[in-house]
Amino acid sequence: MRPLILVSNDDGIAAPGIRALAEAMAELGDVVIAAPITEQSAVGHAITIREPVRAHPWPKEAFPFAEAAYAVTGTPADCVKLALSALVPRRPSLVVSGINNGPNTAVNIIYSGTVSAATEGTMLGIDSVAFSLAEFGQTDFSEAARWAKRVAAEVLARGLPPGLLLNVNIPHNVEGGIRGIQTTRQARSRWEDEYQTRHDPQNQPYYWNGGRFVNLEADATDTDLAAIEAGYVSVTPIHYDLTVYTYLDELKTWGF
Amino acid sequence: MRPLILVSNDDGIAAPGIRALAEAMAELGDVVIAAPITEQSAVGHAITIREPVRAHPWPKEAFPFAEAAYAVTGTPADCVKLALSALVPRRPSLVVSGINNGPNTAVNIIYSGTVSAATEGTMLGIDSVAFSLAEFGQTDFSEAARWAKRVAAEVLARGLPPGLLLNVNIPHNVEGGIRGIQTTRQARSRWEDEYQTRHDPQNQPYYWNGGRFVNLEADATDTDLAAIEAGYVSVTPIHYDLTVYTYLDELKTWGF
Repeated sequence: MRPLILVSNDDGIAAPGIRALAEAMAELGDVVIAAPITEQSAVGHAITIREPVRAHPWPKEAFPFAEAAYAVTGTPADCVKLALSALVPRRPSLVVSGINNGPNTAVNIIYSGTVSAATEGTMLGIDSVAFSLAEFGQTDFSEAARWAKRVAAEVLARGLPPGLLLNVNIPHNVEGGIRGIQTTRQARSRWEDEYQTRHDPQNQPYYWNGGRFVNLEADATDTDLAAIEAGYVSVTPIHYDLTVYTYLDELKTWGF
Repeated sequence: MRPLILVSNDDGIAAPGIRALAEAMAELGDVVIAAPITEQSAVGHAITIREPVRAHPWPKEAFPFAEAAYAVTGTPADCVKLALSALVPRRPSLVVSGINNGPNTAVNIIYSGTVSAATEGTMLGIDSVAFSLAEFGQTDFSEAARWAKRVAAEVLARGLPPGLLLNVNIPHNVEGGIRGIQTTRQARSRWEDEYQTRHDPQNQPYYWNGGRFVNLEADATDTDLAAIEAGYVSVTPIHYDLTVYTYLDELKTWGF
């Protein structure tokens, strides 16, 4: 039997990136799609617990190569949880998320709905990969989808350790073509926030999130940001165990 | 000058846990509160980027011991970002979040709005601590607030390394009283999801998130779950660098 592959994203079921990804995955296995009905960028690992969610069967024409598609009224993590619990015909071999409109690199992974869908797959015991196109506002995901297929095929063949997923960022329009794949770590980075204050017609203030992204190690060559910059696909192994094991002993000396 | 302490949460500005925490913090420094105007549980590390946010000055009577309080139309991470950028009179020495209604332990940290507020503080370069009362539905946070004060005082005195925050869970109603503080790691655990399917009056299906939490290492003694069970305050050092450094070499052998 062909492997079943669950496909989700955070840009919503109508985004071009998920169509390209699902079509590429259909060359590797049977595909079921469960994606948010509306854009869910920057939702992080949110889940819906105070309201029910719905799953609207999506027109076959939108994804003619898929077994089934559902538009879910929830977050990316909801999509994966609901799909695995109630929508898929059998247990998937792989959960993929994307292809995101824009990079999910460095410190920004923690905000990413794309990554959260893949994280949820891993939390539920299924090998998972998040894919992002490292440039905003693109409509052609065909080259990125080819690289996604290559990474996904490798994961299907080799498997991943429990609790570990891959976060993949693919550069766009590299001169001379994408140069290959690099294994990377997240670059240390930070946001320098600057909220813009405006006033509504009643003269009440409101604030727009703005700010400047700062790569704190621009000279490093082994980071996700460096790989993309150099024209490589960046593959970062990540997990959801947040404990800093190396600090446990130090903290014990605090004498609480 | 007394240190400035920024206080946030995810249960909303009207929750009893934040009042108890803010009052305890006022014994250690000047307090500014910026908390969601509505409950934001399980939002994970969501931020608001597609809409503006507002900050409503909150009645002085609600927090008579604070310098200022704001109810923010956003997520816990928004509250901290906006406060640090536009609301605080000077740079805080500490960001605290909570006291949450219910535990934030094991795998659930990733869903936690309470933790995300503290994580955002750390991301923005300020020592931060998340506090949770490890039992749902309680109204008396006074004992938890005393322990929160003790931990916060220690952090103010010693400081934390860059990129590292503390996730603190406090047991409730321990027979004979809380026994002390233990340094812990997150317990390995998982959710066994079971979405309940129901039908609306138009016979359309909807799904409620349900399921069962499973501690995968119930015999361990060094986990957050074990500490709480044994009547100790659990202090776990966590971070937001998700890279699995130990797997980088293995991944390089994949021969991409």
